[in-house]
Amino acid sequence: MLSIESAQVIIVKELEKLEIPAKPEKLYEPVRYILGNGGKRLRPALVLLACDLFGTDYRKALYPALGVEVFHNFTLLHDDLMDNSTVRRNKPTVHVKWDPNTAILSGDVMSILANSLICKSDSENMPAVSRMFNKTALEVCEGQMLDMEYAEKDNVSIPEYINMIGLKTSVLIAASLGMGALIAGASEKESDILYNFGMNLGLAFQLQDDLLDSFGDQEIFGKKIGNDILTNKRTFLVIKAFEKAGKEELPELKKYFSDQKFNPDEKINNVIKIFNKLGIKKETQDLINFHHEKAMSYLNELDVPRERKSVLIEFSEELMKREK
Amino acid sequence: MLSIESAQVIIVKELEKLEIPAKPEKLYEPVRYILGNGGKRLRPALVLLACDLFGTDYRKALYPALGVEVFHNFTLLHDDLMDNSTVRRNKPTVHVKWDPNTAILSGDVMSILANSLICKSDSENMPAVSRMFNKTALEVCEGQMLDMEYAEKDNVSIPEYINMIGLKTSVLIAASLGMGALIAGASEKESDILYNFGMNLGLAFQLQDDLLDSFGDQEIFGKKIGNDILTNKRTFLVIKAFEKAGKEELPELKKYFSDQKFNPDEKINNVIKIFNKLGIKKETQDLINFHHEKAMSYLNELDVPRERKSVLIEFSEELMKREK
Repeated sequence: MLSIESAQVIIVKELEKLEIPAKPEKLYEPVRYILGNGGKRLRPALVLLACDLFGTDYRKALYPALGVEVFHNFTLLHDDLMDNSTVRRNKPTVHVKWDPNTAILSGDVMSILANSLICKSDSENMPAVSRMFNKTALEVCEGQMLDMEYAEKDNVSIPEYINMIGLKTSVLIAASLGMGALIAGASEKESDILYNFGMNLGLAFQLQDDLLDSFGDQEIFGKKIGNDILTNKRTFLVIKAFEKAGKEELPELKKYFSDQKFNPDEKINNVIKIFNKLGIKKETQDLINFHHEKAMSYLNELDVPRERKSVLIEFSEELMKREK
Repeated sequence: MLSIESAQVIIVKELEKLEIPAKPEKLYEPVRYILGNGGKRLRPALVLLACDLFGTDYRKALYPALGVEVFHNFTLLHDDLMDNSTVRRNKPTVHVKWDPNTAILSGDVMSILANSLICKSDSENMPAVSRMFNKTALEVCEGQMLDMEYAEKDNVSIPEYINMIGLKTSVLIAASLGMGALIAGASEKESDILYNFGMNLGLAFQLQDDLLDSFGDQEIFGKKIGNDILTNKRTFLVIKAFEKAGKEELPELKKYFSDQKFNPDEKINNVIKIFNKLGIKKETQDLINFHHEKAMSYLNELDVPRERKSVLIEFSEELMKREK
């Protein structure tokens, strides 16, 4: 049986072997650049694990798994351009290293490459796999649009936020599992159960990202604590704090999340103080636990021997314990 | 049997019925805008005609045909952004009416929508259809990249130019026919013959575009004659003129295709005079005829009753006679 680590190793090796056309160089060089630039390769590993879960040779899911990774990197490429991010995985982003037009067109090409890889499997369920992929791909774009809209809007509600991160992040994790199951020949019902497992795991994962930014251990986290606060990002913690803030905290919160300039450390420390006062860490942890447990209950429903599920159980427990 | 006009009418009607999600509005409104903004709908009509050619109900090819049209409009949307074009079909382009980020993301969504439509047919040949579509989609992006590169380069050769317009324009016309044939259940060989017919027709079509810009009848053409000359576009006519120019014409050509400012009418008139002196109109017309005849010889090869081919023969003759 595959472990998550061996699945990741397979993906890294196969990505290196992936044939990307040589010319025009300016079109395909950025594709090689972003695909060669690391990343945890979690989504494609989940495609392989979901296929393996049903006792089907993971190689049947190999190309679709690579397709998921190429698609994920396509969204990063275009998102970085739209968000004007200059660094990704410690390297300059494509629109900085080349130019915006190259970023647009190389991204377009990656979306098409992703699609041809998704279709490359002889599973009988390919029409269903392709439907799930296309639906998910649209949703990821919807999530990015909502994320951009919400950045301009100061009254985003918790349900709106959860819906947005669900679309932007969780659906692709969910679909990776659902597609892997379908490729293995599992029923739509089994695929849906794994999809829902992944959806809840993805939500827990993203909420933990929000949590670590304020409450992570600086040394282990590796990035500056409070960067989301500094950039006025409306994470779950901020939205919840605005919701729970009383007469005392609201003016201070509003002040810090305005256009005014502050001393960075002062701003971060004072906002985290408000979070502590309002019990935001516990609120976030409770919601993470809720989604983690919900994920586990979906996995329980699945009619597969328990020992085969152990990889996914361990994987989600590791995600819960992660500190970076 | 379908005529080209009835095929176009069907496409217009079906495009109106196409279900595009309502929300997020800012993501899908530009999709409705560009799809509702006219155009000749030639490519999707060719998908239906190619299917009908083999006696198969055109409805089997309906969704893939719509997919081709959505894909074509996606490329127009992103190309307009990259080329910074402000007007398309007499209306503001998406990045002007909305903003560049919306143009990027709505385009991305159209590429995915196109793909799900392409896959929506119960033809047994769908894997081959999907392969042809993905290959073509990559080539169209390659063509756009070359077009942008050549705009900065002053020594583009005729073979390079023909290769570029082939990728940017002809392959999608070719694949529309090839895919229609495959959906009808035709063999790969028959599909390839129609593909090659379309490829040559597409080249003739694009070369005629170049020709009409300099030698069209202003009244019928509807646009200003000489716009390509004015914007220093390296069309077939210009490249050929540079190739044929002697000591006398070369300095004048170089002068007009430099960064200097000129009186527009003077520039257009003098460049057309050089074209006339060098016999560029005939050179272009000869190449158009060459590709038209080559297209016809492919159509001759096809083992289909002559009366069924008549629609495509008439269609290509009309294309040859077009004056706008």
